[in-house]
Amino acid sequence: MDNFEISNLINEISKLPGLGRKSAQRIALYILQNKEKIMLPLVNSLNQASSKIVNCDECGNIDISSPCSLCNNSKRDIKTICVIEDVSDLWTFERMGFYKGLYHVLGGHLSAIKGIDTNNLTIKSLIERINKNQVKEVILALSTTFDGQTTSHVVADKLEAIENLEVTRLAQGVPIGGEVHYLDENTLTTAFESRKKII
Amino acid sequence: MDNFEISNLINEISKLPGLGRKSAQRIALYILQNKEKIMLPLVNSLNQASSKIVNCDECGNIDISSPCSLCNNSKRDIKTICVIEDVSDLWTFERMGFYKGLYHVLGGHLSAIKGIDTNNLTIKSLIERINKNQVKEVILALSTTFDGQTTSHVVADKLEAIENLEVTRLAQGVPIGGEVHYLDENTLTTAFESRKKII
Repeated sequence: MDNFEISNLINEISKLPGLGRKSAQRIALYILQNKEKIMLPLVNSLNQASSKIVNCDECGNIDISSPCSLCNNSKRDIKTICVIEDVSDLWTFERMGFYKGLYHVLGGHLSAIKGIDTNNLTIKSLIERINKNQVKEVILALSTTFDGQTTSHVVADKLEAIENLEVTRLAQGVPIGGEVHYLDENTLTTAFESRKKII
Repeated sequence: MDNFEISNLINEISKLPGLGRKSAQRIALYILQNKEKIMLPLVNSLNQASSKIVNCDECGNIDISSPCSLCNNSKRDIKTICVIEDVSDLWTFERMGFYKGLYHVLGGHLSAIKGIDTNNLTIKSLIERINKNQVKEVILALSTTFDGQTTSHVVADKLEAIENLEVTRLAQGVPIGGEVHYLDENTLTTAFESRKKII
């Protein structure tokens, strides 16, 4: 632990999201005690990823080519763009596999605290893509937090002037599998106000 | 995500202790999006550690030299050996800083389920060290789990024949800051049976 190399490694590991000092220490120890099985493959895959992965200039996805495999896939519907905050949201959609359009990674949401304004988001390139491909629908799939919804409104405002474009957002309400007595007030109010006639 | 390099990286990260698929994915994404600030220093420190870190032939610690800096430190008391299961236990002791003797990493505890018997532990080299340095006290600082205590007994048995050697174990009882009504039955029984006269 006094050792420079080890504490340096622990330090680097503890910078990763979700890892504290203790888990970083545990991971470092595990890595050091399993050089062949764990460390070398890890370093190898980091190097591989580092040298090959680039950001897609079109949608902001990360992939080995730009445009990425999604933007290049002729089977995807280029007339539909789903706007998400982050690449991890894109992965979530792709894991489900039901969506066949393209994506646009916004790069986060507006936040006064973090000093993120409209210039930090990829709204301009979104508008360019919409015009270039004559996109018909933009689905705003941002977080249903206060900042996410503000961002949604701001983006929607900027898209309003574009002709023949439908802008939609994800439905809000009771999550599937959710029990009513565990719902927070905001969700329940939203679900109630957006109730649907079934008979 | 379909991408080979990325899923490979996620795969390697998810092998680390305490990380599931989701956290591995989050970490991989964070690494890939912060090449300069996170990935390169991490790879660098992994490489540094990989090339410099060795196991100490004496005590089993990991360090840049063998014998390690603890075994080589002439200020440490070579007549006292604290037996611990793992290097992380050694780190815990060193973090506290009160112990001035040497260590002996046993390499785990006996476990029928994991198939770890006395041959997998460093008991033989412990006995050799005790004889070589004429060690006066061996402190068994193993877990107070069933397997840990079995191991403690087995090690103590093997050391019994050595002359002029004191074998001790850590005290067991109520942890400091522990509230009696939260204690489990085993701890409370042990603490009660080992009660100490104060007046």
